Amino acid sequence: MKKIIIASTSAMYGGKYLEYLQPVLQEHFKDCSSLVFIPYARPGGITHEAYTAKVAETFTAIGINVKGLHEFDNPAQAVLDAEALFTGGGNTFLLVNELYNTGVMQALEKAVHAGTPYLGSSAGSNICGLTMQTTNDMPIIYPPSFKTLGVVPFNINPHYLDPVEGSTHMGETRETRIREFHVFHRQPVVGLREGSWLEVKGSAIVLGGDRHARIFRQGQEPEEVAPGADLSGLK
Amino acid sequence: MKKIIIASTSAMYGGKYLEYLQPVLQEHFKDCSSLVFIPYARPGGITHEAYTAKVAETFTAIGINVKGLHEFDNPAQAVLDAEALFTGGGNTFLLVNELYNTGVMQALEKAVHAGTPYLGSSAGSNICGLTMQTTNDMPIIYPPSFKTLGVVPFNINPHYLDPVEGSTHMGETRETRIREFHVFHRQPVVGLREGSWLEVKGSAIVLGGDRHARIFRQGQEPEEVAPGADLSGLK
Repeated sequence: MKKIIIASTSAMYGGKYLEYLQPVLQEHFKDCSSLVFIPYARPGGITHEAYTAKVAETFTAIGINVKGLHEFDNPAQAVLDAEALFTGGGNTFLLVNELYNTGVMQALEKAVHAGTPYLGSSAGSNICGLTMQTTNDMPIIYPPSFKTLGVVPFNINPHYLDPVEGSTHMGETRETRIREFHVFHRQPVVGLREGSWLEVKGSAIVLGGDRHARIFRQGQEPEEVAPGADLSGLK
Repeated sequence: MKKIIIASTSAMYGGKYLEYLQPVLQEHFKDCSSLVFIPYARPGGITHEAYTAKVAETFTAIGINVKGLHEFDNPAQAVLDAEALFTGGGNTFLLVNELYNTGVMQALEKAVHAGTPYLGSSAGSNICGLTMQTTNDMPIIYPPSFKTLGVVPFNINPHYLDPVEGSTHMGETRETRIREFHVFHRQPVVGLREGSWLEVKGSAIVLGGDRHARIFRQGQEPEEVAPGADLSGLK
């Protein structure tokens, strides 16, 4: 049975890393004593080692031992063997490129479908969707494909941002960008505001956190759904 | 001799399409009575026809006749034959994909180097850089390459946006994203604020408009340069 947390962000403003999610993660990973961390997205260009050390600190506090995927000779096998998995945020293009180049993408899909508890935040959440085509990141690396895990039958837009009231900036709003996506693609997009997450248990998909999410469907007006909403019919 | 205007945006808040640039364009295109418009970036999914009609309205007012590139049987040849060229904004991934699929990318490079007066705004400015990898757009289409015209020896970030003071949003700022780009690439990036443009005449590159631009170089702190700055040494 799939067991996934898809989080908009790893931290809330003024909060520590994963702090706001801690009770949820304790429950999510309650049967696990170890976790494999996928540091490939490297926010701000941080090294795999430094990123893993930061994550380990957080998980040690809830009794879970962390190892970075870069420490394994065979990363695809390590993912298949993992007791639990976490893909951190950073740059989605870089992440997806590394996942393909190491053969981890396929292993990850297999492991998550087989029920290995998975946590994604930001870029690590983008890859849960059908494609990474609703990422907010810059294309700093050219990946072999934009196709991602598809462990949910729609796309994710993490760090979803409402238009800034009174803004005079002429660059596209997030909503405009997602509408442009829907000129070419039919899958829905879930705009996850910071502090929100999706909890997937088998075929159930529930909106967690205390904020509404914004659902974009091709050819329809966006819909606001409340915390606790059941998104299992969305596709 | 190259003759290029690389504009951050096509319109200022509250202003009409290309209005703020009109005196500059009158000078830039003063020897031209016709212009070929490249509508491929299709902002908001607008059709090629509607986009071209909008642009034609603006240029007719300064005595220039506009034809959309989609109207030609052989678009690459049309670019080589054009008296003047303008690539409008929209989605850079879509634009670059179309430019490659139609063979226009190569023709455009040839025409611009040969001295055909060129105007780019937003996505049409992104493609003047070495690569499109500092675009702000969503990757709604998978292009065959991120390589672009390279008619200037650096990258462009149009609609450059300063961090919002007091923001509690945890998504990356524009500056953070460009720093991540520089983890992997060495070419400078010019952050062009709205209302700014670069004017290229042969090997001279000058910052136009009344705002500073922000120059990002690998491994260095960003530099603010004033209107009128000479960027011809930047590479």
